[in-house]
Amino acid sequence: MYPKRLSILGVGLLGGSIGLACRAAAGDCKIVGYGHRAASLEAALSFGVIDEAHEDPLAAVRGADLVVLCTPVGMFDKLLRRIAGALEAGAVVTDVGSTKRSVVKMAHHILPTSVRFVGSHPMAGSERRGVEFARADLFQNATCLTTPIAQTDAEALELVEGFWKKLGMRIVRLSPQEHDRQLADISHLPHALAAALVMMQDDIAMPLAGKGFLDTTRIAGGDGVLWRDIFHDNRDNVRSSLKRLRRQLDHFLALLERGKSEELAAFLNAAASRREQLLRKKLPEVAD
Amino acid sequence: MYPKRLSILGVGLLGGSIGLACRAAAGDCKIVGYGHRAASLEAALSFGVIDEAHEDPLAAVRGADLVVLCTPVGMFDKLLRRIAGALEAGAVVTDVGSTKRSVVKMAHHILPTSVRFVGSHPMAGSERRGVEFARADLFQNATCLTTPIAQTDAEALELVEGFWKKLGMRIVRLSPQEHDRQLADISHLPHALAAALVMMQDDIAMPLAGKGFLDTTRIAGGDGVLWRDIFHDNRDNVRSSLKRLRRQLDHFLALLERGKSEELAAFLNAAASRREQLLRKKLPEVAD
Repeated sequence: MYPKRLSILGVGLLGGSIGLACRAAAGDCKIVGYGHRAASLEAALSFGVIDEAHEDPLAAVRGADLVVLCTPVGMFDKLLRRIAGALEAGAVVTDVGSTKRSVVKMAHHILPTSVRFVGSHPMAGSERRGVEFARADLFQNATCLTTPIAQTDAEALELVEGFWKKLGMRIVRLSPQEHDRQLADISHLPHALAAALVMMQDDIAMPLAGKGFLDTTRIAGGDGVLWRDIFHDNRDNVRSSLKRLRRQLDHFLALLERGKSEELAAFLNAAASRREQLLRKKLPEVAD
Repeated sequence: MYPKRLSILGVGLLGGSIGLACRAAAGDCKIVGYGHRAASLEAALSFGVIDEAHEDPLAAVRGADLVVLCTPVGMFDKLLRRIAGALEAGAVVTDVGSTKRSVVKMAHHILPTSVRFVGSHPMAGSERRGVEFARADLFQNATCLTTPIAQTDAEALELVEGFWKKLGMRIVRLSPQEHDRQLADISHLPHALAAALVMMQDDIAMPLAGKGFLDTTRIAGGDGVLWRDIFHDNRDNVRSSLKRLRRQLDHFLALLERGKSEELAAFLNAAASRREQLLRKKLPEVAD
């Protein structure tokens, strides 16, 4: 039975869903939550997301064999420094942060060597915020990226990957560098684009929006502070992703301006069929 | 009872849905379809979308009191020239094209004065193609833009708007110019962005895509030839929309590079709340 005592630091949509999913998958695990807002903690308790609530992270990690950081990435540094001394020897710490280079580096720097860190990025969520939107099935069939480095403890990696699998996820391993580079393209840039697309609209155009526009900009509904942290943390990659996007847009505009009718249709059809492939293709999963 | 004999030129997803919706709303209307592929016509007949199928548009419009052009915009010119001589005096012609300046101009230029044209843009659809995806409820609670000009016959405008309302739509009137300008922002540019976003992805990043990416790029799944026509027809507005989007992206990148942390979060939160407003706001409807 692993974990025996799970500590969730930050009981919002993701942290709350981890609690519900863990309870559904492993009934006899004690689930402890930390949150800085008493109201969220109370809601988490009342929804059955956690068994114990603490307004102090120190109290929340004591005795835990698995600790999951679920606050915005921008709070990790402070949080890790706060809990470093209170963690059990041998405890495993992971996180749900959307960037991994800085997080993995920071965790290895701050945590004592008696504690084992594994970077995780469960790619599930919603533009909604708060524990009231937590769902036990949030992770089912979604992908969790793990980002081991040379110093990562092999057993801890296995435990963390096993934990996410128990919650219904498929695992893909990437280096923290590769993770941040790919996520800039596939997640961070799309968010920036969606935000820019909303911000450029006239007040007149907005009510003409159809389902297409709402879908295209759905991710722009996310928490600005959380995303600011992500962008800040991954700004070198985001800059380069944006550069490559501009090149595609330049290409598109050039085809349009020069009346390259066949090529323009081919560009649009290529995008349609690449997206179609995407719906089918999966990365190889790490074997059980 | 209006129309008595409806002619649908092009029985794909939209044309087919018009047939089904009209049948559901007005049982005793004779629905006639034209398509250039025999297989689509047969499918349309077998799905009960149309009562009569014709491979010649001339035959399909004869005796019709309402004709709806449902082919890609790029085929309108040829189609209008072909049917011009066969239309009944007093017949009303409308269309479902996504651009309106060229369509309205072309229709008034080609059609005889005995025939009355009204530009329409029912904003409903899907990235799917073909009559097999037609749905009777496709238009329910969606917006139909009508684009009357000074020469538009007032009765014909009323008839066309009444027809879309019967199919469940709310009506918003815009000039063809305003229509094309606003649609470039809210529909055409988002499509170009989605396509560019797909095309810039590495093969490695693609399988990491989550629901967010799939939603963001959903509209890029549309038919490339149909969209090529739209872009070509509205290229001046698309160019200027793209220019304004670039300005927003430049602003975003500047905030990021200069470490303007508060402003960056404010930009992202403003986008989130503008999108939120969008879900609530509606343009005033034309009174019944």
